[in-house]
Amino acid sequence: MAKIIESIPNISEGRNKEIIEACVDQIRQTTGCTLLDYSSDKSHNRTVITYMGSMEGCEEAGVKLAKKAVELIDLTKHQGEHPRMGCVDVMPFVPIKEATMKDCIELSKKVGKRISEEAQLPVFLYERSASAPHRENLAKVRKGQFEGMAEKVKDPDWIPDFGGQRIHPTAGVLAVGARPPLIAYNINLGTEDLSIAEKIGKIIREAGGGFKCVKAMGVMLEERNIAQVSINMTDFTVTPLHRVTELVRREAARYGVPVIGTELIGLCPMQALFDAAEYYLQIEDFDASVQVIENHLL
Amino acid sequence: MAKIIESIPNISEGRNKEIIEACVDQIRQTTGCTLLDYSSDKSHNRTVITYMGSMEGCEEAGVKLAKKAVELIDLTKHQGEHPRMGCVDVMPFVPIKEATMKDCIELSKKVGKRISEEAQLPVFLYERSASAPHRENLAKVRKGQFEGMAEKVKDPDWIPDFGGQRIHPTAGVLAVGARPPLIAYNINLGTEDLSIAEKIGKIIREAGGGFKCVKAMGVMLEERNIAQVSINMTDFTVTPLHRVTELVRREAARYGVPVIGTELIGLCPMQALFDAAEYYLQIEDFDASVQVIENHLL
Repeated sequence: MAKIIESIPNISEGRNKEIIEACVDQIRQTTGCTLLDYSSDKSHNRTVITYMGSMEGCEEAGVKLAKKAVELIDLTKHQGEHPRMGCVDVMPFVPIKEATMKDCIELSKKVGKRISEEAQLPVFLYERSASAPHRENLAKVRKGQFEGMAEKVKDPDWIPDFGGQRIHPTAGVLAVGARPPLIAYNINLGTEDLSIAEKIGKIIREAGGGFKCVKAMGVMLEERNIAQVSINMTDFTVTPLHRVTELVRREAARYGVPVIGTELIGLCPMQALFDAAEYYLQIEDFDASVQVIENHLL
Repeated sequence: MAKIIESIPNISEGRNKEIIEACVDQIRQTTGCTLLDYSSDKSHNRTVITYMGSMEGCEEAGVKLAKKAVELIDLTKHQGEHPRMGCVDVMPFVPIKEATMKDCIELSKKVGKRISEEAQLPVFLYERSASAPHRENLAKVRKGQFEGMAEKVKDPDWIPDFGGQRIHPTAGVLAVGARPPLIAYNINLGTEDLSIAEKIGKIIREAGGGFKCVKAMGVMLEERNIAQVSINMTDFTVTPLHRVTELVRREAARYGVPVIGTELIGLCPMQALFDAAEYYLQIEDFDASVQVIENHLL
């Protein structure tokens, strides 16, 4: 069985359709890769691309995408709501099948080195690939954004892992790394009161003393006029979906507010859903790798 | 993508290891098939074999298994607790991937015809393949068992679909058919009182006016000294796991009894677990075929 890796590069272009398509074409045209999804946000001026493939396919696609983005995206003219530091801003690799985190770390280093050499784009290794603990968190790596990066990389703590201490004049720098699958999961509350979603977000997130590997905040869903707890789960094997959901249900009940629905945004590993089924159905001694028929086809 | 079918033939031998292995070898040695599991029950004197494969692989394996079983298993000397009418007693085909129920019906007819010709074993088509409504239910087809079958097949209502009105003298008759995946699901109650499990079994099963496609009865788990509702779910797309589980929880609560765990016996389709996760997590607009990463590998 071949090792299968998922990659979710984010490019700093969400408005110009020609540029977006030219970048996505780099994935489409790479043997050993399958494009799963791409979605552009105009106000963020950013496109999230999702694909998967073999180790070799992902290496090739990652390098080709970076080259094309360096060619077409000029950050000196880029404006958008989402923080960014490079034309390809971040390029995570996620183990899906047969592949281990170690495989993804190796892949990220190989791809990072090649991009720095072939696209002249300096690369930070982040998350599980980071060369030091203070460089694991993407937000910390990206702090200062494109405009502050030329100065930041002169700091000995922030020398890029590949490509030296000079940022690319129009393309900036890139973060490449290995990480577990991230689940974007939102919980909709039966209330118009944003402050309830905000309070619950603070309670459940790691930064507020809540669950490890959970980021959360309250937002307003304007089109439905309801408050939502918007959540990123960075490792569902540490904090599973059902634990977050049950705590939100309990905390919302404190205000007499029900959970009226949830949203899984984008892609999700099947094991995260098996774990929820196992919990709620109270299945004893369940082994999905043996007992789920389709697992024998993977 | 190739069509993938699962088959779960039951052979009437659960004690003689040599015979069991010789039969299972017919699956192991067929190209295009993967043996997933086989388990023998000595008191039932019966072995359940689970494998999957291509249309061609399953056809070949089914015919080879029947030939070997006719050669080695003599029902005139067979004793066991489980009702049986043939050396291979039943041979269901289940659509797993790309394949439709129609594919499985066609396959069952092809295999049934070949077995009647090549192994001289008359074949009833049952479940979705049945040639008349009164022949759909396996228990009705099998009624009279091996000992009564020579007489039964003389009835115009019970002429086998293939192989004529004479049963095989030592191997009996076989039921072959297409059906949805069956989920064997048991719910363990926190009580020693078997009568509570029996009452709940009667309430939830189709035969008692409960859920469609649910068979259930109360049994005692002697080794743990607890009562269990033992369930066969014959179509989880009609009645899902969570609906059965929730009703059992409510009915058991009537007696102050908790559900202390459940058991998934053998194999289960991933969609049945996705459905449970979707229900309990209240996921809106969820499409597993797109949103579950691994589905793109199948």
